[in-house]
Amino acid sequence: MTPAAPVTALRGRHLLSIGDLDPGEITLILDTADAMREVGERQIKKVPALRGRTVVNLFFEPSTRTRTSFEIAEKRLSADTLNLAVSTSSVVKGETLLDTVSNIEAMQPDMLVVRHASSGACEQLARHCRSHIVNAGDGLHEHPTQALLDAYTMRQHLGRLDGLQVAIVGDLLHSRVLRSNLLLLRKMGATVRVAAPRPLVPVGIEALGAIRCRTIEEALEGADVVMMLRIQLERMQNNFFPSLREYFTLFGLTAARLALAKPHAIVMHPGPMNRGVEIASEVADGPRAVILEQVANGVAVRMAVLYLLGGSDE
Amino acid sequence: MTPAAPVTALRGRHLLSIGDLDPGEITLILDTADAMREVGERQIKKVPALRGRTVVNLFFEPSTRTRTSFEIAEKRLSADTLNLAVSTSSVVKGETLLDTVSNIEAMQPDMLVVRHASSGACEQLARHCRSHIVNAGDGLHEHPTQALLDAYTMRQHLGRLDGLQVAIVGDLLHSRVLRSNLLLLRKMGATVRVAAPRPLVPVGIEALGAIRCRTIEEALEGADVVMMLRIQLERMQNNFFPSLREYFTLFGLTAARLALAKPHAIVMHPGPMNRGVEIASEVADGPRAVILEQVANGVAVRMAVLYLLGGSDE
Amino acid sequence: MTPAAPVTALRGRHLLSIGDLDPGEITLILDTADAMREVGERQIKKVPALRGRTVVNLFFEPSTRTRTSFEIAEKRLSADTLNLAVSTSSVVKGETLLDTVSNIEAMQPDMLVVRHASSGACEQLARHCRSHIVNAGDGLHEHPTQALLDAYTMRQHLGRLDGLQVAIVGDLLHSRVLRSNLLLLRKMGATVRVAAPRPLVPVGIEALGAIRCRTIEEALEGADVVMMLRIQLERMQNNFFPSLREYFTLFGLTAARLALAKPHAIVMHPGPMNRGVEIASEVADGPRAVILEQVANGVAVRMAVLYLLGGSDE
Repeated sequence: MTPAAPVTALRGRHLLSIGDLDPGEITLILDTADAMREVGERQIKKVPALRGRTVVNLFFEPSTRTRTSFEIAEKRLSADTLNLAVSTSSVVKGETLLDTVSNIEAMQPDMLVVRHASSGACEQLARHCRSHIVNAGDGLHEHPTQALLDAYTMRQHLGRLDGLQVAIVGDLLHSRVLRSNLLLLRKMGATVRVAAPRPLVPVGIEALGAIRCRTIEEALEGADVVMMLRIQLERMQNNFFPSLREYFTLFGLTAARLALAKPHAIVMHPGPMNRGVEIASEVADGPRAVILEQVANGVAVRMAVLYLLGGSDE
Repeated sequence: MTPAAPVTALRGRHLLSIGDLDPGEITLILDTADAMREVGERQIKKVPALRGRTVVNLFFEPSTRTRTSFEIAEKRLSADTLNLAVSTSSVVKGETLLDTVSNIEAMQPDMLVVRHASSGACEQLARHCRSHIVNAGDGLHEHPTQALLDAYTMRQHLGRLDGLQVAIVGDLLHSRVLRSNLLLLRKMGATVRVAAPRPLVPVGIEALGAIRCRTIEEALEGADVVMMLRIQLERMQNNFFPSLREYFTLFGLTAARLALAKPHAIVMHPGPMNRGVEIASEVADGPRAVILEQVANGVAVRMAVLYLLGGSDE
Repeated sequence: MTPAAPVTALRGRHLLSIGDLDPGEITLILDTADAMREVGERQIKKVPALRGRTVVNLFFEPSTRTRTSFEIAEKRLSADTLNLAVSTSSVVKGETLLDTVSNIEAMQPDMLVVRHASSGACEQLARHCRSHIVNAGDGLHEHPTQALLDAYTMRQHLGRLDGLQVAIVGDLLHSRVLRSNLLLLRKMGATVRVAAPRPLVPVGIEALGAIRCRTIEEALEGADVVMMLRIQLERMQNNFFPSLREYFTLFGLTAARLALAKPHAIVMHPGPMNRGVEIASEVADGPRAVILEQVANGVAVRMAVLYLLGGSDE
């Protein structure tokens, strides 16, 4: 994989999927995030890039963490922001998704940041919307800004993405984070090894470019990056594995297991963590964890995406 | 009905009811909305008219649609906005409505945008409040900004209100939208014909100036404007009519029925629509529908109202 | 108690407890609130003191009243504000309080205004946070800005705190307001007499400097300030007293009882009031009540606290 030619703008009007971005666009977003990160460290954390633009955070699924990150990013760009949590809204009155969003669009927002429980909801909206759509997580499909902030964090610590060995361990089946990361990392020349209990491995994961490992040890061996995915406790009832204790025994990240990775390896987690389930507290709080840096970088990366999509209409 | 003399300010401090406005004031609001509409089409959709003013959106009933429209209007005027959804608040702790609002008032907001389930709640508050009150829907009483945005949309498309034939069809009984529209249209010289299943026709509707028709066909004949009102599915349990299918058969707006109206007739709906219940999808999405323009105009009309009430304190 | 030397800044980075403030700092906050109060009376109620700073209102317990007061204060200081109501957030997904807050901190807010059901939650957070923490009520521990606004209101009406006779009557057991007021008033040289039904008197209240009275009459005799505390109706099931009617008979503030206090005495209540339970309506609405002034002063005092903590990083 050779480096893409320098790119100075995104080709698309929306950010729906990592699949739509080429390596040059990914690099552009990460480079722009470098500049945005610096804004967050100033006394006055504000640039006028989106002044007078309206950004609507349209969350059909609750998410404090992602919504907050976007809202802070929008405010640092001086946008006017609106939060719509749509479980309590007219969708319940029998209106279609498209009618709901058409109504919001009619109020002339500039951008819609959308989270929805259905895979592909954002793409459906993008076909009908004049606003820029940013996918903030759609079903089991994608969560592109998460993959971008993860890539930013890797590049920040390890200097590059090309050639990295990335181990991803945990609930692969229910993870849009995995899917977006896999797409991005493969595009940028990284190798991805995955491990999980068999019922949590999606069919066809190898076709997406992942190397499937039978044990966490095999995945971690020589890794530059160890990314642990959340075990969704609410799925336990489906008997994907016998107990949380057993899960930790077989697939939890302990200091001993982390020793299998490269000495400089970083530990990542998209949060929220289940301490003692997918990750030991000593690792989560240890010197190799960059979990809170991921969160900080999330604001910078989202500022970059919003700026590149919405600031370019001038 | 003769045109009113030009008016340059609203007489009242509040917008509680269409009943309080004279034709000159209505025209002033619609003319001001013309200027505000232009702001929404700029790159930087913001004017400093209400900078440093505090507007509280005080919603005792949930309403994503109306609240969002007001919030966008407020932000485009540079006001500081607060959203209070009061179902979860101190009202449940046994405090009276007046104590709740007196407390908010003590924090010196400039304007309160109020939605409440009780007819007359806004008028009660206006008697005690120093802030400007804007009625965003009170019980079955009024929803004045909806009638104003409807009138704005009619005038935009048909050039005038005086002399228009307006057909309003649907749930007349539970509609504050009907009531506010009737008052406004009659003041401005339009004729209003209404049709609905008998249990959905309020007693005394003729006294408000409506011409009651027995069928939708009779109401639509020669109409300039066809306004369909939402059938509230949640009221079906009261057996107002046998089934949604039957409702559509008798009172739904189809392309065939729309052909009874004037060739230039516009189709309106306050939303959210029940497609296939009160309106066929082909009509809702057809060339005569101005339903999304109503939503867009809602922001402009609300900006005009907020500006005329709150920007005039200088 | 001698007046403290003039103080020009707060020593701490946080406002966790009245216990941490010395009399000079309390005076500084009240003096600063005088300036802030004036801002709330302007046409343009905004100063740029916290422009570009991010303040997160992190409410683990619902509170419309306190949250609104802080939010208005933040906006008048030009801060960017975010509201996080955390019952619906990742805390329910099994994440620890510290992980939740660490995540928010990673997004580089400048200040966190925190309400939490656990006493001491704010102090726990302050040990780990880089942001300024403002305690907006933690369990039964403290509600320092309430005590400060109460003190501001007393000083405004009576010219001083030193030497005042303050009667506090009502649910002493479940009141963080009592605790913060007691600490503040004792530090500033006031005398505090308390009265409540025996089951609502906390053990050790005399150790905090309160004089315990057996009857409301004894507490009110010669008082400069009468502060009534809310009876939390939701606690009635615990049988703290036989009935609301009986409570009012024994401990409710009536005009007759108020006559026992000094002629210039003021009547205070932190709200929301139960009219006819802890206070008669004629007193609540009477000339000596300063209950709505407390609310107005709350915004000014919170502006002062936010400004003194967060505006001093320049």
